[in-house]
Amino acid sequence: MKLYMPTKVYNEKNCVENHSRELAALGTKALIVTGKHSSRINGSLEDVKGALERERIPYVIFDEIEENPSVETVMKARALGVSEGADFVIGVGGGSPMDASKAISLMMANPEHDERLLYTKVQTSADGPVREAFPVAEVPTTAGTGSEVTPYAILTKNVLPDIVLTTVPLEKDREAFAHLEKRTKQSISHHIFPALALVDVTYLQTASRTGCINTAVDTLAHLIESHLNTNSTEYSRIYSEMGLRTWAKIKDKLLRFEIGEEERQALMRACTLGGMAIAHTGTSLPHGLSYPITTEMGVPHGKAVGIFLPGFIRNYGNQEEAMKVLYLLDFGGEQTFCEYIRQLLGEVAISEELWERTMDEVLANPAKLKNYPFMLDREKLQGYR
Amino acid sequence: MKLYMPTKVYNEKNCVENHSRELAALGTKALIVTGKHSSRINGSLEDVKGALERERIPYVIFDEIEENPSVETVMKARALGVSEGADFVIGVGGGSPMDASKAISLMMANPEHDERLLYTKVQTSADGPVREAFPVAEVPTTAGTGSEVTPYAILTKNVLPDIVLTTVPLEKDREAFAHLEKRTKQSISHHIFPALALVDVTYLQTASRTGCINTAVDTLAHLIESHLNTNSTEYSRIYSEMGLRTWAKIKDKLLRFEIGEEERQALMRACTLGGMAIAHTGTSLPHGLSYPITTEMGVPHGKAVGIFLPGFIRNYGNQEEAMKVLYLLDFGGEQTFCEYIRQLLGEVAISEELWERTMDEVLANPAKLKNYPFMLDREKLQGYR
Ligand SMILES: [Zn+2]
Ligand SMILES: [Zn+2]
Repeated sequence: MKLYMPTKVYNEKNCVENHSRELAALGTKALIVTGKHSSRINGSLEDVKGALERERIPYVIFDEIEENPSVETVMKARALGVSEGADFVIGVGGGSPMDASKAISLMMANPEHDERLLYTKVQTSADGPVREAFPVAEVPTTAGTGSEVTPYAILTKNVLPDIVLTTVPLEKDREAFAHLEKRTKQSISHHIFPALALVDVTYLQTASRTGCINTAVDTLAHLIESHLNTNSTEYSRIYSEMGLRTWAKIKDKLLRFEIGEEERQALMRACTLGGMAIAHTGTSLPHGLSYPITTEMGVPHGKAVGIFLPGFIRNYGNQEEAMKVLYLLDFGGEQTFCEYIRQLLGEVAISEELWERTMDEVLANPAKLKNYPFMLDREKLQGYR
Repeated sequence: MKLYMPTKVYNEKNCVENHSRELAALGTKALIVTGKHSSRINGSLEDVKGALERERIPYVIFDEIEENPSVETVMKARALGVSEGADFVIGVGGGSPMDASKAISLMMANPEHDERLLYTKVQTSADGPVREAFPVAEVPTTAGTGSEVTPYAILTKNVLPDIVLTTVPLEKDREAFAHLEKRTKQSISHHIFPALALVDVTYLQTASRTGCINTAVDTLAHLIESHLNTNSTEYSRIYSEMGLRTWAKIKDKLLRFEIGEEERQALMRACTLGGMAIAHTGTSLPHGLSYPITTEMGVPHGKAVGIFLPGFIRNYGNQEEAMKVLYLLDFGGEQTFCEYIRQLLGEVAISEELWERTMDEVLANPAKLKNYPFMLDREKLQGYR
């Protein structure tokens, strides 16, 4: 088993200001990657700009990262970063800018490559050797994805149906099937750990009730899916167990949305622990099932994942381990957990057609099944909804 | 608060063989640093040599590391490494070769500097700029120090009494007082995290009963002293809390020395967690008090530290936190803990004279007091023995 968590994390008020020198040490010109609004409202963007200015590090801002960021947006940001001569990337915001910043930094370090590099596992390609991504720093403003400490970047992209991919081997021949393409979320093929994570809970204050709940449930899903995972080890469980114990302490307050300073700190800690846990194991079925719910119905990531958690626990192949998770979360049993999640998230009505298709996709995709340590059939998966 | 644990740790059977490529990637020629005997008996040295040979990486062996390694030995090993052109260091054995390997690698990277560099916090000195240490890999063969994941290296050196150091400012004038020098253990001034730790519990099998107990108690001390520490944070407690919970599970078996495969694994995990915890906080008073007991009476490190643990818990300024530690260790109370330690370690008779001197030294040394979050006076410290 392996333990590897190279990101240096500072978690404290004013940490962007306090550690501006370490931020500046990452390169000579920064590309700041963020969304249109929230990082301006919560003060994080201002703080990052101020820190760089104090250290006399020039920067350029790309603020067009959308929710569920796309490969197209990544390429647009890369173009800006390259033309401006930036040599490190700072992601500011929720999971979207943080994930995007990793992909952008890889592409910036490899300007002669096109977007296919993102989804190709190569050391060298026809277009030349693949260089390591430029250094990345993350400034999270939500307590959810834990992207500030994971090597993952999930992007939205067009993909052809499996039947085309398996029967039409050559890329140029596939163009004829472009009209069959569908939008989907997919992890890039490269692992890029941020060098630095600057976590200041002050930026969380502006989060809405729903936003806070959805991201907190995403964290919960990371902790559960990492703990109950083919790749789970005594090392990864250091993080997931501590995270589950931390989540337990705020769960009742979250339901009543009595979220003050202390609870935000706990949520942020649980979130980082969830990130560290999945950095070791990856996620499992609730995440795999959630992507079509998000891309096709527009259900936010945390909620789309959370609705599958009770089914995941209830149908898990090792009930002793599943009950251990509920014990760490301080839930009396599966029924209590199920009711809690329903109260927290409400109901999500997934059409029969979408649900069938979602199950088909998961069952047909070995990559989505490999983190689940037991045999899975359609009948078992039915029980997740 | 800060979380930083950049060492990549593999913990599995045959991990030296399995990860020979990552070991070889650290440089072009290795200096293997080990002691005279145990690494030959437990097979670790053979495995490291085999791994390097398979990867066609030349190496040279320095096998003269003594217990409580000295600055002189470090300098001797540095001379060998430099003359052989080695550019990375592999420590194989217990805390002594692992600690020494970090100091040696720093000195190898700075061949124009003499041993004063070890105890000088400088970026540049009169002898030129100070370069970063060469990459270090550690192969632990005891479950105790956790040195494989800490940036610390503690060496034995001659030091002048404080009175000379404070009243004689110039080094050249101090030579007249050389006859007053005493041997002591002191942490070097540089922080050097190993790049790679290859942990294989197979190497622990040859450990004797006393050796196993002493190193296990050292681990316990790291966990307790880190958890109850000025620098303790919610991040450092991830490691210390999980480590204390792990130690709790083997404590009764340790007393009966019913140590099989599973217990060795747990001890090794607790040890690594203890290392990760003190990497964030440093140790506290039991370690500070232990060094004269070790250097003057020859009491092994773990035992010398362990005898002060009950007093540390009993006199700790925040009894609620101290009781939380005993709860995590699954001890009913301070009395039970005290008896357990006495049963495990036996009595150590420290002479009145040595004890007075030890207390004097600790009370006069701000560096030894700063990790203890409360005021400390002689009366309180008396209760530690
Ligand atoms: Zn997620
Ligand atoms: Zn120790």
